[in-house]
Amino acid sequence: TQWLSHVSSVWPLPQIVIPSPERYQLKPQSFSFGYRRYLDTKHSCSVLDAAFKRYFSILFPGYTYEANLITFSVLSLRIFPICVLDKLSVFAGQASLNAETVWGSLRGLETFSQLVYQDDFGSYYVNKTEIEDYPQFNYRGILLDTSRHYLPVQAILKTLDAMAYSKFNVFHWHLVDDPSFPYQSQKFPDLSNKGAFHPVTHIYTQSDVRRVISYARMRGIRVLPEFDSPGHTKSWGKGQSELLTSCYRGGTPSGTFGPVNPTLPSTYQFMASLLKEVASVFPDPYIHLGGDEVDFSCWRSNPYIRAFMRKMGFGLDFSKLEAFYIEKIVNITSVLRKTSIVWQDVFDYHERRKFLSVVEVWKQGCYLCEVRRVVKAGLRVILASPWYLDQPGPTHNWARYYNVWPLAFKGTEKQKSLVIGGEVCLWGEYVDATNLSPRLWPRASAAAERLWSNERQTSCVERAFPRLQEFRCKLLRRGIQAEPLSVGHCKHEYQSG
Amino acid sequence: TQWLSHVSSVWPLPQIVIPSPERYQLKPQSFSFGYRRYLDTKHSCSVLDAAFKRYFSILFPGYTYEANLITFSVLSLRIFPICVLDKLSVFAGQASLNAETVWGSLRGLETFSQLVYQDDFGSYYVNKTEIEDYPQFNYRGILLDTSRHYLPVQAILKTLDAMAYSKFNVFHWHLVDDPSFPYQSQKFPDLSNKGAFHPVTHIYTQSDVRRVISYARMRGIRVLPEFDSPGHTKSWGKGQSELLTSCYRGGTPSGTFGPVNPTLPSTYQFMASLLKEVASVFPDPYIHLGGDEVDFSCWRSNPYIRAFMRKMGFGLDFSKLEAFYIEKIVNITSVLRKTSIVWQDVFDYHERRKFLSVVEVWKQGCYLCEVRRVVKAGLRVILASPWYLDQPGPTHNWARYYNVWPLAFKGTEKQKSLVIGGEVCLWGEYVDATNLSPRLWPRASAAAERLWSNERQTSCVERAFPRLQEFRCKLLRRGIQAEPLSVGHCKHEYQSG
Repeated sequence: TQWLSHVSSVWPLPQIVIPSPERYQLKPQSFSFGYRRYLDTKHSCSVLDAAFKRYFSILFPGYTYEANLITFSVLSLRIFPICVLDKLSVFAGQASLNAETVWGSLRGLETFSQLVYQDDFGSYYVNKTEIEDYPQFNYRGILLDTSRHYLPVQAILKTLDAMAYSKFNVFHWHLVDDPSFPYQSQKFPDLSNKGAFHPVTHIYTQSDVRRVISYARMRGIRVLPEFDSPGHTKSWGKGQSELLTSCYRGGTPSGTFGPVNPTLPSTYQFMASLLKEVASVFPDPYIHLGGDEVDFSCWRSNPYIRAFMRKMGFGLDFSKLEAFYIEKIVNITSVLRKTSIVWQDVFDYHERRKFLSVVEVWKQGCYLCEVRRVVKAGLRVILASPWYLDQPGPTHNWARYYNVWPLAFKGTEKQKSLVIGGEVCLWGEYVDATNLSPRLWPRASAAAERLWSNERQTSCVERAFPRLQEFRCKLLRRGIQAEPLSVGHCKHEYQSG
Repeated sequence: TQWLSHVSSVWPLPQIVIPSPERYQLKPQSFSFGYRRYLDTKHSCSVLDAAFKRYFSILFPGYTYEANLITFSVLSLRIFPICVLDKLSVFAGQASLNAETVWGSLRGLETFSQLVYQDDFGSYYVNKTEIEDYPQFNYRGILLDTSRHYLPVQAILKTLDAMAYSKFNVFHWHLVDDPSFPYQSQKFPDLSNKGAFHPVTHIYTQSDVRRVISYARMRGIRVLPEFDSPGHTKSWGKGQSELLTSCYRGGTPSGTFGPVNPTLPSTYQFMASLLKEVASVFPDPYIHLGGDEVDFSCWRSNPYIRAFMRKMGFGLDFSKLEAFYIEKIVNITSVLRKTSIVWQDVFDYHERRKFLSVVEVWKQGCYLCEVRRVVKAGLRVILASPWYLDQPGPTHNWARYYNVWPLAFKGTEKQKSLVIGGEVCLWGEYVDATNLSPRLWPRASAAAERLWSNERQTSCVERAFPRLQEFRCKLLRRGIQAEPLSVGHCKHEYQSG
């Protein structure tokens, strides 16, 4: 059953796998990838061409892929896009992959790369296998926080590599927050000039951002930008005066600032202008608007804010003021033809919920109760609560992130279909490039299987464990600094630079 | 007071620092190191020569030290060994360092390197400073466990670098244990051939071991080998039959094995032979013999062991059998002219305690009670209990490792002088090269200051915090993957390979 362990070690587990003991040898010198050209045109697909190069190196470390030099092929992988399902078959001399989209082909390539193994003499093999596959949830995200600590672009790219290995497809970029504003805006350069930890070394230039987006796209990963407001904006105030609320003490300004000032027209002019830029820089149809953890004490201290509250008839209910603000920001976002995502706080205090589209549930406690409330209101949900991986913890507790059942609430099929996926959050209080990888991997891979695979086939922690261990060894082999899950070893240990 | 923050940021804090606002510029092109030759001979000191090269690169990243090309020196550091105290003075044009030993010079060089800083334009400066320094405890160790996970030699060397930066001086190498036996013995090659995770890729050859010892020595670090027995020896049994106790079930051998069999003469012949090799390979005058956590159930099950117990008059007290074994092993070690160190378990069950020399206290709970018991028995103590850093935990809990007072027990001065130091233990259940560095640093540096610096001057966590943060940035700058302690940034962030 040695062969079975190779074949069934694909992580996350595909929906249908039909393995076989029949194996074929792969020769790096004569292995080739190819794809059927769309509509017989001569246009090539740059995403697949680049993926072939990457996966060739992953399959055969030390060899270089020379697409044009191949004349004879012992085993080749041919990809046929435009089909009903992602379907991978390995037969004698040829593996074929049918995918609905080019992104599906990338997932299939990843699966194929995990099927290939080496024997003790270094020869490469793949077993005859049939796989049909598709993800359980469409949204499989990882949040990185580049405000509490700056992450060098290289660290982000490395994370994108690892995400693709676990079939994550959304990079939620929590770009800015209280501590720093590293996004270099074209229209408002002072935001990073004054709000970043350092205006030159600790920023993301437009070219950095483009590089991240393009690197992610080549791996089938969307980049979802978050510009969190009206709270979590201290760093914004340094480069944009009048934006934040001036806090008062004893009737006079105290010199400190609170959330964005929602009473001034200039605030909305600025936000519209900034979000317009964001909408054009980030091609994703979604923008995350934040909206979490707004502290009302500063608003309450400010006499102008209180006067505005009276004028608007909000009484003493500052959540109405917050709702007023968010509604305007969501409107701005709609005009830009982007769909907005907000943290659950907005759903909780907002009475006119139809106004919202996607809600991200993050609070601990009975998170499925909250999920149920959101879908009952007819809104879509992303679940993050059980996957706050910035918390350090013994790696052997990985099952805590595996035994999560996002649909285990009372509801109709239609309501359940509104749960579009989940997200691993790696907040930055105690995380930067020094510990990001071991804190994320392989614990995030446990979440990845939950979001990709069939729930019933992956309900047993004991059966998942050896597969996850083998997958972790594959991550090491690919240069990902993934923590050990228990005592033991990998054939190829992690080699530090 | 900018200058004061530079000067007083040395970690661990020196015993006496007299700072001054007067600063001198250092020019990489014309900076030189030198030392007074011992007894006017022409012999050079290879340890210092190599250290000069290292510290030049640390002081001036990007420049190369060319010892012989220096003709003019704006500021130079001259070292005068053979003196009473480690004493470092920086005056105009020259810094001088007087040290009792070459090892003291290395500590002084480290201190000097931490005094140098860059201004915003990249120029290098050092302030006029007088420092007198010596360590509070002589034994400042870090334990790495290479049995539960194999650590590539490179990961060990990198740890030795970082240890020197925090002035640790003992690398306690927990080489072998139950899961694997990676030490390649000259006399008993089957121990690693059969007991390592892999007989070729997951072992330490004689040349690996020599490399580690020499690399450590160049940095003023001793290498203390541990060959733990009679428990924790499962992996030994694979390559050395008859060594372990055969466990019985229902009157017949069950096929499983327990601790070393203490009843057979062949056991002591083997141990004498192995320890003789260890004593010659590792130059340190100490050997750690382990002796912890012996499970008696297998001994109890074995009729031959029980017969031996009766013959020896041990009754049913298996700790007497364990004491019998350890006493023989300690004797073997003495004959080899090495001093033995044992885990506290041996002290706890051993009635004839005078027989022991150094006891390492590791159990949690009232560890100072145990320290007191050991020193009252006239034995030396190494304290490890409060520094089990293999446990993951939020980095901001670093003060847990800082607020440790090894001498805070009732005892005479003489008894307190028997506490020779402390040790950070990084056990390997969930640690390997992927997460070793961020788990160790900077938390281990908190322990380092406790072991080096004056207790009264370092009793305030709030005052230590900014210094530790700056030291952590220095570690990043030197390529050590040290975790962040809080939100914020370093001028030079960690750049992954």
